[in-house]
Amino acid sequence: MAKSDIFRQLAVQCSTHEYPIYIGSHLLRDEELLVRHVRAEQVLIVTNQTVAPLYLLGVQNAFCEKQCNTVVLADGESYKNQDSLTTIYDALIKHHHHRDTTLVALGGGVIGDITGFAAATYQRGVHYIQLPTTLLAEVDASVGGKTAINHPHGKNMIGSFHPPQAVLMDLQTLATLPEREFRAGFAEVLKYGLLVGGDFLSGLTTLLSKNVRDIPLNELAHLVGQCCEIKSQFVQEDERETGCRALLNLGHTFAHALEAYTHYQRWLHGEAVAIGLYCVALLSHQLGYLDAKSLASVDLLLRALQLPRRIPKGLDLEQLHSLMFNDKKIKNKAIHFVLMRAFGDCYLDSRVTEEQVRHLLISAVEGEEQ
Amino acid sequence: MAKSDIFRQLAVQCSTHEYPIYIGSHLLRDEELLVRHVRAEQVLIVTNQTVAPLYLLGVQNAFCEKQCNTVVLADGESYKNQDSLTTIYDALIKHHHHRDTTLVALGGGVIGDITGFAAATYQRGVHYIQLPTTLLAEVDASVGGKTAINHPHGKNMIGSFHPPQAVLMDLQTLATLPEREFRAGFAEVLKYGLLVGGDFLSGLTTLLSKNVRDIPLNELAHLVGQCCEIKSQFVQEDERETGCRALLNLGHTFAHALEAYTHYQRWLHGEAVAIGLYCVALLSHQLGYLDAKSLASVDLLLRALQLPRRIPKGLDLEQLHSLMFNDKKIKNKAIHFVLMRAFGDCYLDSRVTEEQVRHLLISAVEGEEQ
Repeated sequence: MAKSDIFRQLAVQCSTHEYPIYIGSHLLRDEELLVRHVRAEQVLIVTNQTVAPLYLLGVQNAFCEKQCNTVVLADGESYKNQDSLTTIYDALIKHHHHRDTTLVALGGGVIGDITGFAAATYQRGVHYIQLPTTLLAEVDASVGGKTAINHPHGKNMIGSFHPPQAVLMDLQTLATLPEREFRAGFAEVLKYGLLVGGDFLSGLTTLLSKNVRDIPLNELAHLVGQCCEIKSQFVQEDERETGCRALLNLGHTFAHALEAYTHYQRWLHGEAVAIGLYCVALLSHQLGYLDAKSLASVDLLLRALQLPRRIPKGLDLEQLHSLMFNDKKIKNKAIHFVLMRAFGDCYLDSRVTEEQVRHLLISAVEGEEQ
Repeated sequence: MAKSDIFRQLAVQCSTHEYPIYIGSHLLRDEELLVRHVRAEQVLIVTNQTVAPLYLLGVQNAFCEKQCNTVVLADGESYKNQDSLTTIYDALIKHHHHRDTTLVALGGGVIGDITGFAAATYQRGVHYIQLPTTLLAEVDASVGGKTAINHPHGKNMIGSFHPPQAVLMDLQTLATLPEREFRAGFAEVLKYGLLVGGDFLSGLTTLLSKNVRDIPLNELAHLVGQCCEIKSQFVQEDERETGCRALLNLGHTFAHALEAYTHYQRWLHGEAVAIGLYCVALLSHQLGYLDAKSLASVDLLLRALQLPRRIPKGLDLEQLHSLMFNDKKIKNKAIHFVLMRAFGDCYLDSRVTEEQVRHLLISAVEGEEQ
């Protein structure tokens, strides 16, 4: 059996059970660890065409004594849809998977979200475990039990809360991650930085002064662990997002509209979040909450990450505006924006007017004077 | 405001909240009662083409001060599918329904199940109330929080647990219910009788000695109340069906296979349950658990209800057999049958062999010697 190193282990408490997050190296080769949280005799691995050639065989090996079936989806946010979900249901039924089956999500945030939702709804709920292979999935999507697919008119519009049985984060997968995806993942890391500020943000700022590709594995493991800790604190306090968990949506109202507008094809989720973080910093500044220096810092950090920060020219801003009003962070027709007063001091604001959002969108377009 | 009579009120405790069941007369005209459990400013009523002309206008009136949209589906179990679900999602998104919307299920079990599942999954869960208009929905489908759609290869294969905020049973709707549907609803009533036996079954047997259409409203209300009480006791003890709730599936392993085999078009659900009840009584008898007299009683009660009791000739029994092994009541490849030792004494049995099921299917075919 191949050797793995577990650098860090966290326990997340949700309303129905507690589940572990393992952060380490070569975990996807550790057959004992892979089967530890799968008591079922049946397993369905869901992955995509990019990840399958790299890691599928190894994971299948771990389940060779069980009935193990596989679904390989096309890669990309635009496939996080009803068709892919149907493919998973059909495979489960074709191979006679029963209520005590376990689904295994092997891939990034898209695979995790869609597999989680399939697990939430197949036979009214079966178990699943997460094997995230992207930075974004490790620091965000695989923690907290949110599952979903997209609707053509709105991101994550169809979904449910269904926490996994375990999350295994093998940081070796980041070595095979395309640089673009790696950088996109840092948008969510930066989001945590803006949310909690303090030492975490200072440390992150220092890290980002060098090329992110050069960050050593142990420092990366520490960073991922911190992100999981921050997220699981929010989630444990407010599993179903009736309160503070909503702060985790910092930048996401803009990001979701941008993704829906471009049919989930132009940007990686993290890239859309990067633009969203800039937009919300600019909005907070325009409304008089955030000072100019902090706004400039956000811009600088995003630039250091080589992430997009502006809305590209040529987008129909009125349509973008109307997509924002389709987003889930809306109550009684007012958008609930997460705004920034300072780093580490974000809050929910429902008083932002449609006109203020319109003005923001215009001034966040590439090449416009701020 | 129109006058209504509430004959009976029950409270059902589920893991997330407590909700009331009102049983009465003319409740669908009682605007105050209809809005009592809808705090949302947005409402989507889901109903079907049969029910809409009868009751939709009245229910819409109750919500005239809110944003009230409507989805009218085609009528029938064969429409409890992904397409209908998509129609509901599309309407919610088109009319900008937010996380604090409330769905209203106005119709029978199909409408209740599909609307409940839409509510469970739209934006990761919104509220809904049930206004059941069939006997089957009143005594069974609207109580307990199970929601689902069918998959072409299996009944209720996709779904979740998502209890409503309230259930309003207006028994006046039974006056407009076609006799065939009314009789079919009694199959579930009889199921409770076989499960609990005793006074309830004796009372039911007496009732069934006359034509069910002649049962006075107050006796019907009493019967519906008893059924809701029995079901909610099972459900409160075991919301997610890890134990005793499974007993409520008496006859359903056969029924679900029969429905899937005929693409949900030949029988009403209750009719398939009727055949299923006969099959399970016969199986229990063949295995030596249930005596011949009890088997004959089941047959007689189903006959009094003018419900189908036998598997029609010409069905491919091998295919039916294989559909049963797709059902949800399966763990580690063994079917968990609910069998009868006596009326009021049912239990889960996982030792029934495939051969015994094959033998049962052959002997339950119309015209075969028992």
